[in-house]
Amino acid sequence: MSSILDRTLQLSIFGESHGNALGMVLDRLPAGETINFEELRVFTARRTAKLGDKYATSRVEADTPAFLSGLVNGVTTGTPLAATIENTNTKSEDYKQMQTLARPGHADYTGHIRYNGHNDVRGGGHFSGRLTAPLVLAGGICKQILERRSIFTSAHIYSIKDISDAAFNPVDIPLELVKRLQQSRFALIDTKQEEPMRAVIEHARQQADSVGGIVECAVVGLPAGIGSPIFEGMESVISQVMFSIPAVKGVEFGNGFSASSLFGSENNDAFYYHNGIVKTKTNRHGGILGGISSGMPILARVAFKPTPSIGQVQETVDFQAETNATIAIKGRHDPCIVPRAVVVVESAMNLAILDLCLQHGII
Amino acid sequence: MSSILDRTLQLSIFGESHGNALGMVLDRLPAGETINFEELRVFTARRTAKLGDKYATSRVEADTPAFLSGLVNGVTTGTPLAATIENTNTKSEDYKQMQTLARPGHADYTGHIRYNGHNDVRGGGHFSGRLTAPLVLAGGICKQILERRSIFTSAHIYSIKDISDAAFNPVDIPLELVKRLQQSRFALIDTKQEEPMRAVIEHARQQADSVGGIVECAVVGLPAGIGSPIFEGMESVISQVMFSIPAVKGVEFGNGFSASSLFGSENNDAFYYHNGIVKTKTNRHGGILGGISSGMPILARVAFKPTPSIGQVQETVDFQAETNATIAIKGRHDPCIVPRAVVVVESAMNLAILDLCLQHGII
Amino acid sequence: MSSILDRTLQLSIFGESHGNALGMVLDRLPAGETINFEELRVFTARRTAKLGDKYATSRVEADTPAFLSGLVNGVTTGTPLAATIENTNTKSEDYKQMQTLARPGHADYTGHIRYNGHNDVRGGGHFSGRLTAPLVLAGGICKQILERRSIFTSAHIYSIKDISDAAFNPVDIPLELVKRLQQSRFALIDTKQEEPMRAVIEHARQQADSVGGIVECAVVGLPAGIGSPIFEGMESVISQVMFSIPAVKGVEFGNGFSASSLFGSENNDAFYYHNGIVKTKTNRHGGILGGISSGMPILARVAFKPTPSIGQVQETVDFQAETNATIAIKGRHDPCIVPRAVVVVESAMNLAILDLCLQHGII
Amino acid sequence: MSSILDRTLQLSIFGESHGNALGMVLDRLPAGETINFEELRVFTARRTAKLGDKYATSRVEADTPAFLSGLVNGVTTGTPLAATIENTNTKSEDYKQMQTLARPGHADYTGHIRYNGHNDVRGGGHFSGRLTAPLVLAGGICKQILERRSIFTSAHIYSIKDISDAAFNPVDIPLELVKRLQQSRFALIDTKQEEPMRAVIEHARQQADSVGGIVECAVVGLPAGIGSPIFEGMESVISQVMFSIPAVKGVEFGNGFSASSLFGSENNDAFYYHNGIVKTKTNRHGGILGGISSGMPILARVAFKPTPSIGQVQETVDFQAETNATIAIKGRHDPCIVPRAVVVVESAMNLAILDLCLQHGII
Repeated sequence: MSSILDRTLQLSIFGESHGNALGMVLDRLPAGETINFEELRVFTARRTAKLGDKYATSRVEADTPAFLSGLVNGVTTGTPLAATIENTNTKSEDYKQMQTLARPGHADYTGHIRYNGHNDVRGGGHFSGRLTAPLVLAGGICKQILERRSIFTSAHIYSIKDISDAAFNPVDIPLELVKRLQQSRFALIDTKQEEPMRAVIEHARQQADSVGGIVECAVVGLPAGIGSPIFEGMESVISQVMFSIPAVKGVEFGNGFSASSLFGSENNDAFYYHNGIVKTKTNRHGGILGGISSGMPILARVAFKPTPSIGQVQETVDFQAETNATIAIKGRHDPCIVPRAVVVVESAMNLAILDLCLQHGII
Repeated sequence: MSSILDRTLQLSIFGESHGNALGMVLDRLPAGETINFEELRVFTARRTAKLGDKYATSRVEADTPAFLSGLVNGVTTGTPLAATIENTNTKSEDYKQMQTLARPGHADYTGHIRYNGHNDVRGGGHFSGRLTAPLVLAGGICKQILERRSIFTSAHIYSIKDISDAAFNPVDIPLELVKRLQQSRFALIDTKQEEPMRAVIEHARQQADSVGGIVECAVVGLPAGIGSPIFEGMESVISQVMFSIPAVKGVEFGNGFSASSLFGSENNDAFYYHNGIVKTKTNRHGGILGGISSGMPILARVAFKPTPSIGQVQETVDFQAETNATIAIKGRHDPCIVPRAVVVVESAMNLAILDLCLQHGII
Repeated sequence: MSSILDRTLQLSIFGESHGNALGMVLDRLPAGETINFEELRVFTARRTAKLGDKYATSRVEADTPAFLSGLVNGVTTGTPLAATIENTNTKSEDYKQMQTLARPGHADYTGHIRYNGHNDVRGGGHFSGRLTAPLVLAGGICKQILERRSIFTSAHIYSIKDISDAAFNPVDIPLELVKRLQQSRFALIDTKQEEPMRAVIEHARQQADSVGGIVECAVVGLPAGIGSPIFEGMESVISQVMFSIPAVKGVEFGNGFSASSLFGSENNDAFYYHNGIVKTKTNRHGGILGGISSGMPILARVAFKPTPSIGQVQETVDFQAETNATIAIKGRHDPCIVPRAVVVVESAMNLAILDLCLQHGII
Repeated sequence: MSSILDRTLQLSIFGESHGNALGMVLDRLPAGETINFEELRVFTARRTAKLGDKYATSRVEADTPAFLSGLVNGVTTGTPLAATIENTNTKSEDYKQMQTLARPGHADYTGHIRYNGHNDVRGGGHFSGRLTAPLVLAGGICKQILERRSIFTSAHIYSIKDISDAAFNPVDIPLELVKRLQQSRFALIDTKQEEPMRAVIEHARQQADSVGGIVECAVVGLPAGIGSPIFEGMESVISQVMFSIPAVKGVEFGNGFSASSLFGSENNDAFYYHNGIVKTKTNRHGGILGGISSGMPILARVAFKPTPSIGQVQETVDFQAETNATIAIKGRHDPCIVPRAVVVVESAMNLAILDLCLQHGII
């Protein structure tokens, strides 16, 4: 019933799309961690990056955070780190129709019921994708703490509609690839897919439509033995955070859903010793066995539905008037959030992994 | 780091496959709920049911619970309800090889690292699928409390390997179907698929191999407005519990992964008024928008990997001797757990839904 | 390990005494609650009120909150309510000596160890009494929600050093008294004690010393049946919040410590029916039996040590130089925080009571 | 709303006084800890010890635990440790009157309201002091883990009614005293007080009355830097557990309530270096500053009300008949639980301290 990720690491996210400010409080961070603000700026800018005027929303916000507490001279104090992000350039008039019409695929109707009509409806309020800004800010801080311990998280556009990128090599994800993907605003392993992917997005835009996609995320450098059986397994922890990202409708690990159509002999991974360390020859298990890390790369795929904000006329209800109605959502909406969602998935993963590392006392 | 589902409803699960007893403590149940023990027996028996000698493990345990607290004359007191389940008919000698050899696809190695070699390795210990017995016991109690409020959970075998059942009609799941599936030990919407599914399982058994599958689960009768944005969304809560089931590697809601290859105009669900109630004409959102129930059926699919216990010779390591090795797992292992996993998925869903209902004060 | 009160109601408090801002996020508030800002201003002003130049610190901050989220037109949305409070008029130079010298009775040394020297030491940082500002802000909001349901919290100065006020009549606390105390900046039942109390404070001030005291707090209007046995008893919940107030070293309920020297026949409270409602003729149990409210007034007393900031020369250590040293704390420190602590205790109680009411679904 | 202590360490307590069994699940224990069962037996026997037929209840139960999980060859596995304790020798007929009459000072009435009349009333049900048996079992396990790291908890009868023992020397608690008190069934620093204390108990027994008292508890060997400011301060954590013990009505640390009548100059503790370690010359702060351990002994006092079960005729209500009534509680009730409560307080402290050590990663 809350916007607090409440684990060993605690993250409180607040704000509404068109409210005074967004922000977050990140509690239980280790003390003495230096924040590289320029690196953080680059990381968070991936969330707001335009894909050229053609593809991305024209509403670009700098998302420059104001740090209120928890830092002295850019070093974490160990007490709660709070930061706010201003909302600027918001045109509330664009959203006036939402106060009476439920946008299909959005939380306008469910939020109205949940909060007895008191929720802030401007721009989706607390349900807005804009709430991923504080999530990415928190994730970017966690990332720096993890990378200092050689634990790296990377993600890429696995697919947009029916165009697919190459997949991560499950047993070998080189650091150069991690670094290259982290610096890209259209993160692909096989960069030749950028053009057809942009084409499908442009096609959707021209139809006043939208497309979804899948983000694949990997963690390298996490030692074996992190996580626990049953309710605190790594899959449980990671999926809880991933599903907190708006528009996510599926999460899988390793072979995931495709494992369901394999024989056990095809899906099991053979163990072997490599320089004294236990590894698996393949990695269909996605680095997690019994909820616990195996030392192999963690591999997750996260499915995003096409963004529900489309310009086409749609059938809906006016839940104030209690009548059927139609809606055509105005404004220039992003026909595909997947390229910008890559850094959001990375952020969610960094949060989950740092939490687990703190819980197990390895950080 | 725990085996406690720690939400408004709290479930502590304990035990090891070959230990003295399994059990659970279910805390924060409402007071005054009558438990129908015969109905509970039928429910939990679905987890241990044989599929005929041909398909199922010969290790069948009655799983009769002993209730220790929380009930007076079969009515919940509101204080913690504890129950134990005896372990009988366990042949520890079958598992001796595990103490040195890591079974591929199992948690033998990760558990060894996680607990510094102190975990109970007999039969998988706390990682055993047998730990779903207390989960199903708890789920069966939650089910009765929910059904008394006309909230029904149902599940079926969506697929086994590449054989698929019909899917739920997302907008209309009649109570007769729910009831029929709840009474089946091979729960299918299209019962004609039983024979080919049994054939693929039998084929795997003959090859000393195994197969996985997908379980589809629905909840009908849940009112709109349950759940919350961000970290406490329904998908986050449900997926946390689903991934606590051994062998689950993927969870999706509504259109799930397939939404990623649709246009927004294909994936959005039109709202309309039906007898004064807001409904959607289609249900690609799986009954959840913005983390909150829409009043439409909740729809989830849960992917099970093929059970990793197979009789074929596999490469592995001896983590005590620190050498490469081979393993051929003895004993008569279940070549497909999916038919028996249906009631486990239902149980996980009942737990998650009762928790959310308690959190929102509607029970 | 956190500054998050993490219950059904969740309160995250952040900030340092001399940092950019203090603030709080209050999550899981009910939607639709109107905030009376003027009433809130009056409530929070009791924490910063001067007692005349003679008695109070000259550092007075307006503590005007900026609300960032969770409100639309002054009505709660049900999503996280965040607010910040600016730090102004801070003279960091006064506190420079703290960076090397541990002030006796303060957390300078323990905080240094806890955070490996990374904590913000200016003005006590996150340990400062100033962190009660967001607590009082949150408590003042909870108060309005509770009072709308006729649940009133009141507190007064029970004693300062060896001067005592009259105690609450445990079985009859009239609303006029509640209202009068809430409007007072030196809250006393027997106002004749103000003069001797001020005299003892003034005496301490002249000696560059300080004095402590006890605050008594009552809740009227709470129905019977709230709370639970064992770890979630009302005493456990309330004491957790009370001990989070700096300088609190003791908490007792009803007869409290004095019950330990009574016979059972002297301490038990006789039940009787009064207009169809069960009451007790006396209220030595402080409104709580078995962790659960009895319907009688909740009665708690909270002991404050004398504020450790005194001007006298004290022996201490320089934990950087690792030598013994002496310290004379400069600045005009408040010789007695008890009059201003009354509203802090009320705030902690309002938080705990609203949490319990939300948990039990009565709000 | 639960009987789960839900922190880094998690303890679920279940059972009713006259139910099938009591028990507990202790989750998140470190793996590899050897349990000394004989030492555990001696520890738990202090809770059930008779004080001679004259002073103690004749209902003595062996409280021999049956361990169900979490141990292999007496060594913790790291997975949940569950144990049950049988209820024997229960005479339910003695308690029949409770089903209609509220015993003054007991939870009969509040429990009836809380659980809508569904709670188990026999012997107090889940509210019974008998529920301290699983608490002591858990505490005894925690004790062994802590003592292996040279962290020792000790407690003694500080007072019974108006007879007082000597207090701990706040700055020097020798291990011999700790050991002696741990082996005593009437734990006193000044053993000359045993006779007058027994006399006051005997006096109460002869009057069909009861007496209360205070237990003082110390922890030695805990390093500095454990705990946190605000809601997770050591006082908050310890008091939450202490108030979960039935009959506890007050908790204080260090000088506690008496600090309220001192000058700051009398209550502050001077720091100094002793062999390179920071210590305080006095210990009025009870080993805790700003919620964080200082390295000095932790000192807490816990006030027990006189046990409310007395044989004298008392006024009460019949809450079924809804009439005023009288009650004379039959059976041989313990006129003073304080001597047996010493080990319960120690157990609560061991639980809280192990939790904090686990949270801070020092165990």
